[in-house]
Amino acid sequence: MEGITVIKVGGQILGDEHKLQKTLASFSEIQGAKILVHGGGAEASDLAKRMGVEVKMVEGRRITDDEMIDIVTMVYAGRVNKNVVAKLQSLNVNGIGVSGADGNIILSDRRPVKTIDYGNVGDIKNVNGVALVNLLQSGFVPVFCALTHDGKGNMLNTNADTIASAISSELSKSFNVRLCYAFELKGVLADFENKDSVISKISELKFEKMKKDGSVNQGMIPKIFNALSASKSGVEEVFICQFDHLHEPEKGTQVC
Amino acid sequence: MEGITVIKVGGQILGDEHKLQKTLASFSEIQGAKILVHGGGAEASDLAKRMGVEVKMVEGRRITDDEMIDIVTMVYAGRVNKNVVAKLQSLNVNGIGVSGADGNIILSDRRPVKTIDYGNVGDIKNVNGVALVNLLQSGFVPVFCALTHDGKGNMLNTNADTIASAISSELSKSFNVRLCYAFELKGVLADFENKDSVISKISELKFEKMKKDGSVNQGMIPKIFNALSASKSGVEEVFICQFDHLHEPEKGTQVC
Repeated sequence: MEGITVIKVGGQILGDEHKLQKTLASFSEIQGAKILVHGGGAEASDLAKRMGVEVKMVEGRRITDDEMIDIVTMVYAGRVNKNVVAKLQSLNVNGIGVSGADGNIILSDRRPVKTIDYGNVGDIKNVNGVALVNLLQSGFVPVFCALTHDGKGNMLNTNADTIASAISSELSKSFNVRLCYAFELKGVLADFENKDSVISKISELKFEKMKKDGSVNQGMIPKIFNALSASKSGVEEVFICQFDHLHEPEKGTQVC
Repeated sequence: MEGITVIKVGGQILGDEHKLQKTLASFSEIQGAKILVHGGGAEASDLAKRMGVEVKMVEGRRITDDEMIDIVTMVYAGRVNKNVVAKLQSLNVNGIGVSGADGNIILSDRRPVKTIDYGNVGDIKNVNGVALVNLLQSGFVPVFCALTHDGKGNMLNTNADTIASAISSELSKSFNVRLCYAFELKGVLADFENKDSVISKISELKFEKMKKDGSVNQGMIPKIFNALSASKSGVEEVFICQFDHLHEPEKGTQVC
């Protein structure tokens, strides 16, 4: 099977011009088919503040009312996505920016209201592998922003980590998929004070043990959890790696 | 040769929810390959005002400084484009939103400064017909916003009428292209007081005569000029038609 690399990069990195350049330069060095998935939450919050719109978060998740879906659509699909695509083009990477609505690539269900109404937030229902493979076969490099749609004409806010995992899982039916969650550090650290103490491999068992003995940094827990979920969903290789080492993720932490 | 329809719709129409629905419903009835090109200037100016950014226009053209290219990128490629694409998907039209940077479809030169510095404004240098045909052959319906790129990592603001004309001209090498500039009226009117007095055909000669004898409404002059330019650049059929009659443009005014 042909290989493909899926990279997820967070909004904090992409909001920093210097880090963005390093990220995209590293991304441009990845050989073969590839996909970039990006966030943009911090920039969306900045625009909301500038527009006098209140940012509401519950346990780190954004409440996306009608005004906020408009703002995240402008920031994720507009400012961040086009900035990334234009810069990739200048690096001879043939990026094509997409949300889940474009080509009907990702269809979601609006999250049902239980105790909290998250508003216009989508839980992924279907990834359209055919449309995605059509783009790849035409030589495009899809650049996903963290938006999907409900098929009824509405955009929905969807977590970028989840999008990366869902498209990787769908593509694993026809590709050998290598998925990398990129962040600031070299990988998951055994000793947070020592930035070189990268743990080369974390299994589910090891993760449980690390959580129990407290040797894993709190901020890392959701990241490792996401990576493990992707691995369990059929993705061949999953890494947590540094944003400027996307072309050599094996220097980071493999999660399996 | 296979036929294709290219529709340009202005931002005023798309900014009105009711007219937007009518426009997209009519667009969905067009048979065969098709492309939509949209503006969004009025909405961009609204956002600028809300953000406290001054809107500068010279003879109806927007001065696009660094803050303004950020705003138009958010509005054109974000809010307007994704709203249109999501609504098209709900009408079973497989829209895929693109700027000129996406797939490197439209490369522009930054407009040189003569007497006026328009800022981040692009004059089209090249339309990548191969990339565009790849999208069409994959069954996608490209939805263009009024943005291109310079190949050096920067987005540029480019007139939507010009984009519609440039892609139509490029596609006319391999398709029979029908281009329609859609607006509020049924077509170019012989008598502005009588909304049904549609002129069925305007040639360059007739246009010159109309300008001389003052029988053409001032606001129509640039629209007819654009339509004539497209016709001269090799596009088979060019119409000025009503936004909710996109599927039967021959009821409007043909320009040739």
